[in-house]
Amino acid sequence: MAKTWHELIQELQFGSVLALSRLITRVENREPGWIDAMQQIYPKTGNARLIGITGSPGTGKSTLTGQIARFLVSLQKKVGIIAVDPSSPFSGGAILGDRVRMTDVSDLPDVFVRSMATRGALGGLNQSARDVAKIMDAFGKDYILIETVGVGQDEVEVVRTADLVMVVCVPGQGDGIQAIKAGIMEIADLFVVNKADLDGADQVVADIQSMLDMGLEITPAPIFKTVATKGERIDELVTETLTLLQKQNRKESWLEDRTREELIGLVSKEMVDIVKTNWKRNGQLDDAVRKIREGKSDPYSVVQKILVPLIDAFK
Amino acid sequence: MAKTWHELIQELQFGSVLALSRLITRVENREPGWIDAMQQIYPKTGNARLIGITGSPGTGKSTLTGQIARFLVSLQKKVGIIAVDPSSPFSGGAILGDRVRMTDVSDLPDVFVRSMATRGALGGLNQSARDVAKIMDAFGKDYILIETVGVGQDEVEVVRTADLVMVVCVPGQGDGIQAIKAGIMEIADLFVVNKADLDGADQVVADIQSMLDMGLEITPAPIFKTVATKGERIDELVTETLTLLQKQNRKESWLEDRTREELIGLVSKEMVDIVKTNWKRNGQLDDAVRKIREGKSDPYSVVQKILVPLIDAFK
Repeated sequence: MAKTWHELIQELQFGSVLALSRLITRVENREPGWIDAMQQIYPKTGNARLIGITGSPGTGKSTLTGQIARFLVSLQKKVGIIAVDPSSPFSGGAILGDRVRMTDVSDLPDVFVRSMATRGALGGLNQSARDVAKIMDAFGKDYILIETVGVGQDEVEVVRTADLVMVVCVPGQGDGIQAIKAGIMEIADLFVVNKADLDGADQVVADIQSMLDMGLEITPAPIFKTVATKGERIDELVTETLTLLQKQNRKESWLEDRTREELIGLVSKEMVDIVKTNWKRNGQLDDAVRKIREGKSDPYSVVQKILVPLIDAFK
Repeated sequence: MAKTWHELIQELQFGSVLALSRLITRVENREPGWIDAMQQIYPKTGNARLIGITGSPGTGKSTLTGQIARFLVSLQKKVGIIAVDPSSPFSGGAILGDRVRMTDVSDLPDVFVRSMATRGALGGLNQSARDVAKIMDAFGKDYILIETVGVGQDEVEVVRTADLVMVVCVPGQGDGIQAIKAGIMEIADLFVVNKADLDGADQVVADIQSMLDMGLEITPAPIFKTVATKGERIDELVTETLTLLQKQNRKESWLEDRTREELIGLVSKEMVDIVKTNWKRNGQLDDAVRKIREGKSDPYSVVQKILVPLIDAFK
């Protein structure tokens, strides 16, 4: 018989990795009882620090994330990794070596890796990642690394509420600056120019520097050059990261904003899920689709009719 | 006095570009009456073909999009461009030359460019782009080019329902394949290897080819090498695109799926908007945030309380 939520939460507190994994899956799948479970898990959270690691595809984020985890483990820290990797049905996930490299890391003691492939989950990626982070936090992780591609709006949202955001750039990606223009400059607490043994690394540093000079930050984000594949300067990067995290005192207003956003995200995701499941289940959706295809209705009329009771319910 | 919706829709049909622009803005802002307006606009749509153009930052998508538009205009076609470009508050939008290049194109007769910068609009990007496409369609555009970065899940959704999807790659972006792994392989009807005058272009073609060989497509997507900045092979690319569009007969089941998705997207966006505006307006959200910050409540309890009436309303 499948374990109860209560059993899993108890085992989570006793350090069962299997319970951690199962809880995450059940919450992700929104199995009945998930919301009660999260209510029980919530008071046990608050210890872990979230580090967002973001950058374009091909910047070596996964390798860097792995190296950071490795170094944190050498400092006796417990590490969780959330890899938000839009999957391709072509391959059932990441195509090249990421997964292999990640597996290397997850073999380390005290590193738990969770790969999230929620392609198509409208607006749900962000919230799902937060749920996973909370469960890892309650499990006792000290640091949770969230790795995302830094170009999608949902993906940017995922890291935006992290305690520290690391933006990874790399020499030779088109214009250099192009790769970092996608709304992530302003959320970066720290820049990493990875693959710094390639030509053009100093140019990327200079590009970032000049963009930072254009901004109004009092303490501009530091820039680090690393070669993740060789582990070069990972120690400095992690040390600085931990220092920044220690010094950092997010203002109460920032924390309130994060809570506000978390609530809106949570409600929105649930509402969308309700639309998807209930609407499909009762056949209304198929009726509407048929009428539209037959030219007897249009999407806007359908939506208007559906929203009226919802708006009333929410007033 | 501001024009009425009715006036704007009439002017739209008489070919007023100003009316087109204003209608888009009003619908994007969800000004009162927008849903009635879209109901009136809907029956006038159905002529335009949507072409999705997607790829990582730095692949030269904007230049390519501009060149495609230019060539379509030379064929006496009316073109709309929707540029979905996650903006950065750093710059109030795209940082480098995109906007300039786009302006060049929008000076052409019969090209209308709309830039969308909806950073942070949870799940709304997709729906907003669809609304804009519908209004352009009703205006009389023959082809609508939707340009997005191809790595975010929301951004992938935007092009997924286009009549034809073009995936743009470029030599020298990390692993080559890395850049195209993000769930877009399977939605590509056509690949473009842009900047094909750079070293490694043939390798990218080979990489794509070998990925296609792994797939189960009966007619694999063709691959084109272009140099958008010089206009090289744009003519062939556009000709093939138009041929593909002509041959293509989306199945009724595909069209039904698209309508279904459109409806879910539309309802979801509206629901999320309702949460955001109503919840903020009546002070409930701030109350909830305060209680959570004071440790007297948790997000999951708040959400549960809010969702109960919504679920009832939707049953």
